[in-house]
Amino acid sequence: MDYRRFFETAITRLQDERRYRVFAHLERCVECFPRALWHRDDGTTQDVTIWCSNDYLGMGQHPEVIAAMVDTAARVGAGSGGTRNISGTSHAIVELESELADLHGKEAALVFTSGWISNLAAISTIADLLPDCLILSDASNHNSMIEGVKRSRAERKIFRHNDLGHLEELLAAAGARPKLIVFESLYSMNGNIAPVAEIAALAERYGAMTYIDEVHAVGMYGARGGGVCEQAGVMDRIDVIEGTLAKGFGTLGGYIAGDRVIIDAIRSYAASFIFTTALPPAVAAAATAAVRLLKTRPDLRAAHQRATHITKHALGAAGLPVLENGSHIVPVMVREAELCKAASDMLLERHGIYIQPINYPTVARGTERLRITPTPCHTGEHIVTLVEAMVDVWNTLGIAFVEPPQHLHVDPESRERCTYPEIKLAAQ
Amino acid sequence: MDYRRFFETAITRLQDERRYRVFAHLERCVECFPRALWHRDDGTTQDVTIWCSNDYLGMGQHPEVIAAMVDTAARVGAGSGGTRNISGTSHAIVELESELADLHGKEAALVFTSGWISNLAAISTIADLLPDCLILSDASNHNSMIEGVKRSRAERKIFRHNDLGHLEELLAAAGARPKLIVFESLYSMNGNIAPVAEIAALAERYGAMTYIDEVHAVGMYGARGGGVCEQAGVMDRIDVIEGTLAKGFGTLGGYIAGDRVIIDAIRSYAASFIFTTALPPAVAAAATAAVRLLKTRPDLRAAHQRATHITKHALGAAGLPVLENGSHIVPVMVREAELCKAASDMLLERHGIYIQPINYPTVARGTERLRITPTPCHTGEHIVTLVEAMVDVWNTLGIAFVEPPQHLHVDPESRERCTYPEIKLAAQ
Repeated sequence: MDYRRFFETAITRLQDERRYRVFAHLERCVECFPRALWHRDDGTTQDVTIWCSNDYLGMGQHPEVIAAMVDTAARVGAGSGGTRNISGTSHAIVELESELADLHGKEAALVFTSGWISNLAAISTIADLLPDCLILSDASNHNSMIEGVKRSRAERKIFRHNDLGHLEELLAAAGARPKLIVFESLYSMNGNIAPVAEIAALAERYGAMTYIDEVHAVGMYGARGGGVCEQAGVMDRIDVIEGTLAKGFGTLGGYIAGDRVIIDAIRSYAASFIFTTALPPAVAAAATAAVRLLKTRPDLRAAHQRATHITKHALGAAGLPVLENGSHIVPVMVREAELCKAASDMLLERHGIYIQPINYPTVARGTERLRITPTPCHTGEHIVTLVEAMVDVWNTLGIAFVEPPQHLHVDPESRERCTYPEIKLAAQ
Repeated sequence: MDYRRFFETAITRLQDERRYRVFAHLERCVECFPRALWHRDDGTTQDVTIWCSNDYLGMGQHPEVIAAMVDTAARVGAGSGGTRNISGTSHAIVELESELADLHGKEAALVFTSGWISNLAAISTIADLLPDCLILSDASNHNSMIEGVKRSRAERKIFRHNDLGHLEELLAAAGARPKLIVFESLYSMNGNIAPVAEIAALAERYGAMTYIDEVHAVGMYGARGGGVCEQAGVMDRIDVIEGTLAKGFGTLGGYIAGDRVIIDAIRSYAASFIFTTALPPAVAAAATAAVRLLKTRPDLRAAHQRATHITKHALGAAGLPVLENGSHIVPVMVREAELCKAASDMLLERHGIYIQPINYPTVARGTERLRITPTPCHTGEHIVTLVEAMVDVWNTLGIAFVEPPQHLHVDPESRERCTYPEIKLAAQ
């Protein structure tokens, strides 16, 4: 039997639908972030500016974070040696879990090798340990949360995105059975923020447990980087907070924080945790350094918001269709898959700007977009170059502007580096 | 509603069944491997010898591997910046995938953040892309493979462990439909090896695809460390080879290798791959260093087998019930959960030897064991100390010997370091 043809057909299907993904081969560089080296297929290279990193605060390039990784690798080695049970519970991971529990004001935390796995493991395990549990899941939840919901044996109902009325209706109809509300604090593709205090209040009123995904918020919101729940003052009213070490904290891995007994039950029952090699101590130590650093650096969070604000303002002033939201995510709408890919390609090839296209299935068809993520390392100069490049691409490809392009006005102050002296100091 | 009690009940259930796991808090050390520092709950520490690491060759402590991690972190940072699509396709990961494809003589390879995820993603995606696929799965397959099988929509049948007759029966009965045989090359808890050439022959005869998990074999078997399939000369007759970077290669992550079109289809369709942040370049570079190194170091593989051989011989001569197998895994049978935990605790507390207990659900009830994994870094002195400690624990707890303990005879040569000069050189 010719098995290859089944896979060829599957690939062709994606290509026909214009959603076949080609990964950009990039080489980051500590001394030049957000610039990086793009390796073309023909072997040549080009200097580019990354405008779509999920290393939102540039922590992956921060000297203290890198030093923690380097020192720990040199001292204890490159790997953990096994699963958490098989000699993988390193001192570095114990310290990291303690730091994360403290960040969220919880009794305990548990680290996984990815945020995807932490959602899969935690949601399914919690729901399966609650007899006759009903999961109430936001319609816009991330793939990993949906996987966790589906993997459990519990009944599930979907509430309309951020719709408190619909959620309350489902809670009221559920009666006295155990209920688990599963939602995100900051939805990454639209950048909108959940009404976390109101959801916590509903949960209390109807006796539901709450599980929140804060992966796009930890490190970036709240007085110490505890996320949207810290900012809203409701960390203690949410049962389980899930976060990532791979975005705001710049390294790798996911985690959950909550009551000791809940964390212990997930630790003890989740196969995807039990049977997976632990994070290397060097990665855990780097993450710990980032978490600790950001607890004391509201200035970096302010610089991040400022870079975002200026970018949104400048893009909007140029007539580019920025999706409004209250967060650090800057979606610019294209609304057509092929155009979206073409815009991304032209930005890279003609302007040396890397922003990958966001097409179906990551977003719904007809809502294709470029998703821009300014960091504190993007300067005013970077922003001006970005806006000019996007205007050129929009004009060349005939993509719709919101209104005729206006004279681009960027606050002169924004032409200077937003902040982040450490990184440049390291380069000297 | 008091949700805590559901989790408390779940924990109590594990404690009652004597399968509640307590992780040993360990701190490895480059200059002293396989010795490590054990952090007790009371804050004191003790020097211990690790005898159950899955870092089978000590690669996680190898100076070249550590140097690759340190250099790469210092040069490009601590994290990858996002999913593979969102600026996460680093130069280091592209190099690693090329190295892995070469290792297995395949067109392409794809790296995941763990072996667990690589099995989940690859098995389910392959099976779902083959219309009316029947999965034939070995009864002893690892949890992650079972998860991959269950996650697909395909029908599945389980064949008795390593039973060629049963497999052929199922293949013959399946007729002309697409079939996927899913099995391991080296089963980690018993240490037995699959008849890979015979399974490849059956697959060819009945027109089935083959998917093999070589996580406990890559780096350690075959002329270049390609695993049991390389040793048996059948790499080209197996469609997809799955391996790990976290055991023989001492770092973190999992991977698959195969035809370009198959790898591309998994890359394009597997949600658990698409939506997960890529491995940090520093981890990928460390893994690449380990893979490259082991391609040229049959002497390390020989030293590993020699340490295993001596350990098995010495334990057997002492009357300890070693499970026979042809591999580097040394299971010593206890056959009772509480005794197994007690033996592990006593080895640690009285003798400073760390071997975690293997109880249900990792193995069947009544087959509880200590699972010993000698490395090239374990010396003859370590082995003698291990055997004497285990004899003491067996006597103290009244665990059954195979025969009355005999005078312990270990080849005098084995009292010297097995090999591995690099590690000690680094310590000087």
